[in-house]
Formats: sequence, structure tokens, C-alpha cells
Amino acid sequence: MEFNHIKMAAERIQGLVHVTPVLTSQLIDQSLGCECFFKCENLQKVGAFKARGACNAVSLLNAQDAALGVATHSSGNHGAALAFAAKLRGIPAYVVMPSNAPQVKKDAVAAYGATIIECEPNLPAREHELARVVQSTGAHFVPPYDDERIIAGQGTAALELMTQAPDLDIVIVPVGGGGLLAGTVLAAKGIRADTLVYGAEPAGADDAARGFRSGQRVVDVEPKTIADGLRTTLGQVNFIIIKNHVDDILTVSESGILEAMKLLWTRLKVVVEPSSAVAVAAILEHKETFSGKKVGIVLSGGNVELSQLPF
Amino acid sequence: MEFNHIKMAAERIQGLVHVTPVLTSQLIDQSLGCECFFKCENLQKVGAFKARGACNAVSLLNAQDAALGVATHSSGNHGAALAFAAKLRGIPAYVVMPSNAPQVKKDAVAAYGATIIECEPNLPAREHELARVVQSTGAHFVPPYDDERIIAGQGTAALELMTQAPDLDIVIVPVGGGGLLAGTVLAAKGIRADTLVYGAEPAGADDAARGFRSGQRVVDVEPKTIADGLRTTLGQVNFIIIKNHVDDILTVSESGILEAMKLLWTRLKVVVEPSSAVAVAAILEHKETFSGKKVGIVLSGGNVELSQLPF
Repeated sequence: MEFNHIKMAAERIQGLVHVTPVLTSQLIDQSLGCECFFKCENLQKVGAFKARGACNAVSLLNAQDAALGVATHSSGNHGAALAFAAKLRGIPAYVVMPSNAPQVKKDAVAAYGATIIECEPNLPAREHELARVVQSTGAHFVPPYDDERIIAGQGTAALELMTQAPDLDIVIVPVGGGGLLAGTVLAAKGIRADTLVYGAEPAGADDAARGFRSGQRVVDVEPKTIADGLRTTLGQVNFIIIKNHVDDILTVSESGILEAMKLLWTRLKVVVEPSSAVAVAAILEHKETFSGKKVGIVLSGGNVELSQLPF
Repeated sequence: MEFNHIKMAAERIQGLVHVTPVLTSQLIDQSLGCECFFKCENLQKVGAFKARGACNAVSLLNAQDAALGVATHSSGNHGAALAFAAKLRGIPAYVVMPSNAPQVKKDAVAAYGATIIECEPNLPAREHELARVVQSTGAHFVPPYDDERIIAGQGTAALELMTQAPDLDIVIVPVGGGGLLAGTVLAAKGIRADTLVYGAEPAGADDAARGFRSGQRVVDVEPKTIADGLRTTLGQVNFIIIKNHVDDILTVSESGILEAMKLLWTRLKVVVEPSSAVAVAAILEHKETFSGKKVGIVLSGGNVELSQLPF
């Protein structure tokens, strides 16, 4: 994959998704000791950057494949994003969701008119159920992150950010499956080769950080983190891009995630998921790395259950 | 006062405050049955539209008066706004605050370098303490709403909104002291005379609605509402402008305010104060008035204590 894939994705999804605003806050800059530019993908369609990848993937289907619909398994934002993208194109969407997925995320998928298929909350059950759905409907499987179309779409957030906030020294995004980070590094270094690109990961789900250091993708993770969007294992395509291009992956504590989340809610006045706060937590906990720099941060999503806030 | 005062205020405060974004949400439009354009003053400097009026008032002071500083009493956003405006101009600010003001608001005032003077939580104590401060320092009193400079500044939010979202049928804003509503009606009708302008007020603090109907300003209010920013009584200058120009004042229930707040947090992904949700509650509870219309809403502020959320 290369920079050009991101640029083509951006043209493809133009008008389908929002050009989200970039927010700044002097008080946050004072707290963090650097100049921060927050790309608000929590204000994106479906409340997360995932709308970008899903729209790119759905746009790329030919008419014959598209007519049968799309399918995926998702505990979170990718399901809503695919439902949204399918609705825009006027095709069916089937989303396999674990029975314990947050109600707010089930509601979002349903609101976009997708068919929800519930399954046991474990990966084998999800994959089994998805295979059954694909076989019975002929729908096209759109994976949540381990897919070049998805990576290209997610990279468009950083592409926009670097136009809205030029001359960034560093871009940092959270890493779970690696779709956002892989797309971001291709976009950011494509625009300005000496931009440093970091992933931010909870220490309790540090498969990306460990794999990045060892050079071997880590698949035996038992994630323990409040950042539900980052409990996934890094994808294969994603791992190769990240290993070859990303500058470092910084891990953060759970208390750091909470502190960052409070900072964003109270100072930036935006509703963000814990996953989004992970990148800000990395700045809080690795201040020397960011000191005095111009830093771009992608706030990945804003879908939270208000009845279960951690404060 | 007239439209021209708003335009001059806008020129005066340009570069001192943010041009805040206007957000939309298809899901919210579906819920409310109209097309909504949210002017995000919660993303304004100091987290509220109050930065506009304060900057306008402080800009208008001559050098000699300004040097002695500014003073006000405020339980909330006006104090932070005046502290912010004074800091920009490099002059002292003195803010009299009731001892029971939320910590988040005290922190904000302190962060802008103002001197906080605590007093008993009642109006006579606040006024007494303010008079003492003004006498001892020579600082210039900048009232929170009953002041033409403040009204002109607050009106600049609607002025921007009507450029960002043209052809609005209705503009609705919350009404407490009436600075925002008075400025909004002058701005909105100045741009397009047949724009309908409504105030939205908690039924538990309905002095503006009662005064609007009777033609007599109501001063005997014992406000009972979660919307702490709207517990004030309508100002005198404000009342005259509102009585002469506003189309109606709609009252809302406390449960409506909570429902609207949840809708904004979960769907628009922004942190808003209960006061901001009051305008959206008015749409929820008076749907026929807004059905199918293009509606501009000023989200007035986003300063909430996360430890005391109502959900």
C-alpha cells in the first residue's frame, strides 16, 4: 500500500462523510506542554472514524456484488459504520454482534437499518455466525481493519488533519486492530516524510507495542482495559505497514486514560470514548517526547454509554 | 440598540474569540422532526458564549479605565469570561463568587489569573461584596447581562450562525438574564426580518415567559431547575428588547431538559451544560412549532462538573 491509496480513498468518500473540525485548547496545551490539534472524528458520521473505511470499501464494490449486501462482525463502531455505508448505497447490511455489546452501539446499527445477528461473546462464535450469514445471503464480508480498503479509508482522517493543521511535528492515534494507525502513517508520511507517527496503546492490551519491538505480530493477548475499542489484536496487513513505517508505539496506564478522558470532556467539551483518550494519555505519560512540539491527535470516536461513565 | 451594534461588536472581538463550528446530525433531525443547526458555543473560549460579551465590553474601555481592571459577580461562566477578556487585554480582573459555586467554574476563573473573592451564596451578599471590591480597587463593573455592550457581544454568535447556516426559519436560544436572547433577536432579525426568534426557559424559572406575556418584567422568581445558568432574573435592558422583538418564549420541563441533554451528548457528541439543552428541550416539547423547519440553536456552554452528571 502507498500514499496514493489514501488520496484516492479521500476522493471516493468525499461528500459521504464529514470533513470533521480540528479543535484546540490553550488550557490543554498548558497542561500537556505541547501544541495540540484534535481531529474530531467523534463528530464524524456514526460517531467514529470507522465511517471512512466502511464508505471506501462499500464504494469499491461492483454493482453485482453490492446488490447482495455487506456483512461483518463487530462489537462496536465498525458495525454501525458498515450499516451507514450500506444505507447510503441502498444495499443490505448484516452485522453479527456479541450479545453483550453496549446498547448504544446496537441502537446505532439498528438505526441505520442493518440486520443484527446476535451471537455468543467470543471470537469463534462471531466468526462462525458471520460465515453462516455470508453463506446464506451471499453478502460481501467487509472486515473491521485487516483490509487495504479499510486502511485507505481510515487514513483520510490524517490526510485532512494535515491540511487543516499544517506543519505538525508528530501525529499520534490509538491502535487496536491497526486500521487507523496504518492509514495514518501512510497519509502523514506521504504528506511530510519527517512527520513522526506514533501509536498509543493501553498497557493492558499491548500486543501492538510488543509486536512492534520484537518484529513478530503478537496474537496471544488477553486485553484488560477500559478502552473497549482497542481490545482487538493487530491485523496482518496492518502489522506490516506499522512495523515498516511507524516511529514508535507508546503504552499508557488505565489511570492515564481516565485522566485524559476527563481532560477532553472538561476542557475540549467533546464526548469521546476511552479509546480516543488513549492518545492523549500517551502525551500525559510521555511528556518529554512531545514537549514544545506541534502534535496532531485523532479523536477516534464518541460512542459511550452515558449510564456507565467511569467518573 | 440596533443591528449595527452587533456588527460592530463582531468586528471588535474578531480574533479574540473562536468562530465556533455549526454541527448537524441526521439522527437528531429524525428525532426532532426538523433540520437543526447547532452553533457550538460550548466550544467557545472559556466554554461558553459569555466570552463574546466580555471581550466586547473590555475592548470598549478606554486605557485609563482599563488599567484599574474589571470586576463582576458571577456564579458561573461570566466570571470566567471576564477573567479571560481581562487577561487578553493584560488588566486585572476581580470576580465575586458565591462560596458554593461549582469547583469547575472556580478553577476556570482562577486559571485565567483573576482574583476570586468568595461571598455568601445570596444576591445581597454578592452585590455588597462587589461594591466593596469596586470601591477599594477602582475596577470597572462589567455586569453579566443587563448591559448593552454585553448584549451586543452575545448577539455575535447568532450573526455567525446565520452566515454559516443560511435561510434559517427559526432561531432558538436559552433565556436566563437575557443577554444571549436579546443579542440574538437583534442579530437574527437584522439579517433576515422574517426569521422567528424564540427564547427557551425552564418552567421552574419562567420569569421571562411570564413577563413576556404580561408585558411587565417579573422579578419575584424562586427558580427551581437543573439549568443553573438560567436561574437569573431577566435584566431590564434585556426585557425591553425581548418584549419588543422576540416572537415567543417556550417553557420546558426538567425531564425534557435531561432528555435533550442525553440526546446532545450521545448523538451530537458534545459536552453541554443543562442550560444549553433547554433550547433543544423546547423543540422536543413543542414539536408542532418546529415541524419541517430549518432551526438554528445556540448551544450556550459546556461547563459541567463531571462528578455531578444527572445521568
